[in-house]
Amino acid sequence: MHSAVAPQPVIVLVRPQLGQNIGKAARAMLNFGLTRMRLVAPRDGWPNPDAGPSAAGADAILAEAELFDTLADAVADCTHVFATTVRKRGVTKPVMAPDEAAQVVHAEAGLSALVFGPERSGLETDEVALARTILTVPINPEFGSLNLAQAVMVVAYEWSKQQGLAQPPRTELLPPAPQGELDGMIAQLETMLDEAGYFYPPSRVPATRRTLRTLLSKPGWNHLEVRTLRGVLSALANPRQR
Amino acid sequence: MHSAVAPQPVIVLVRPQLGQNIGKAARAMLNFGLTRMRLVAPRDGWPNPDAGPSAAGADAILAEAELFDTLADAVADCTHVFATTVRKRGVTKPVMAPDEAAQVVHAEAGLSALVFGPERSGLETDEVALARTILTVPINPEFGSLNLAQAVMVVAYEWSKQQGLAQPPRTELLPPAPQGELDGMIAQLETMLDEAGYFYPPSRVPATRRTLRTLLSKPGWNHLEVRTLRGVLSALANPRQR
Repeated sequence: MHSAVAPQPVIVLVRPQLGQNIGKAARAMLNFGLTRMRLVAPRDGWPNPDAGPSAAGADAILAEAELFDTLADAVADCTHVFATTVRKRGVTKPVMAPDEAAQVVHAEAGLSALVFGPERSGLETDEVALARTILTVPINPEFGSLNLAQAVMVVAYEWSKQQGLAQPPRTELLPPAPQGELDGMIAQLETMLDEAGYFYPPSRVPATRRTLRTLLSKPGWNHLEVRTLRGVLSALANPRQR
Repeated sequence: MHSAVAPQPVIVLVRPQLGQNIGKAARAMLNFGLTRMRLVAPRDGWPNPDAGPSAAGADAILAEAELFDTLADAVADCTHVFATTVRKRGVTKPVMAPDEAAQVVHAEAGLSALVFGPERSGLETDEVALARTILTVPINPEFGSLNLAQAVMVVAYEWSKQQGLAQPPRTELLPPAPQGELDGMIAQLETMLDEAGYFYPPSRVPATRRTLRTLLSKPGWNHLEVRTLRGVLSALANPRQR
């Protein structure tokens, strides 16, 4: 079921509450040919005996699901992180519908992560901030009762529709660097800014960090570009004598 | 939620077994703006007390659902009947995927019926024969475990995509900053890097400058983002005393 170009995206469930819903999500995935699941801190631990019966035969997905402590860990090797949210938040990132996101996932050579939050609360602001793109399933604004497995299903369905259309890669551009490399660069910058007294007053620090992260996630810099920027930061931090 | 041209299609559930699934189907419909349900000979009669709790607020759809004895009665006033089947049968009718069917429903002025069979067995051959078109949700041929409400949801989702209202909210992203602003930021960075001894050896300076410019042009940062980055650079150049 792999496209000729892009690897199959990973489906990341963040702090899912019910094992049953994890099983249903696996079933929704497999119906449309997706098989790679990652779990971040599931509420009731993992493995969860409630998941299997709801998976209706998609047990292999559960057996191979990868477990992580944080979303950052779960997407460290991903080049494009999509955060699924139901409503628009005050975040300035591109927003895509499932069909648009599926096209992008298929067109990019790197590993994409499609991230879903807990059943009721959804992703936290800091988790959305990790993503380059917001993925929103457009639903009836006066109702809006899409559950976790249903959201996964719509996204998987749109992904499967693009299969077989196997688009050529847009260009020979390098894919975006894995999220972990970007995180390393951001950490380096934040350390420097902290030492320079940039983060002030303390009450605004979280918002300022999010602003910086959003701004630095926007480009989708590739591995070489991130390395260059780290060199720039190192030069600024440690001027050399000529 | 009506299109300007076509009336909203009716969702017809034929001999549904569990009230719970009727409720889930109503919920799936309402998530995507569909409200007209018809029931043909539900196994456990109608109304069914199990339906309401699963509808998660879509009770009005259940309250207004119309009851019929046969599929023929249920679709007597419909101009285009779509019979949903998971697998292609030996029937010589046009087969459409949900997106194609949604386009047809929107394009035709008459009332369309989207017909779904019982949970396990699906529609009988004589019922499929009533339809003008077969509607098939393309799923993983090696798995294929789409339940009734999920099938309704995919079809409703595709219908809603054709509605102009159903687009995700576009974020009001600011346009990229004018080139002059970007140039100002690049000049500031280059001055700092020059002072830090970054541009070395001299023979490679033009290429290095081009690399930096390419990388910093890539994001298309807007006015606010460029201003933030200039603040970052100023902070690094002039650490403040706290």
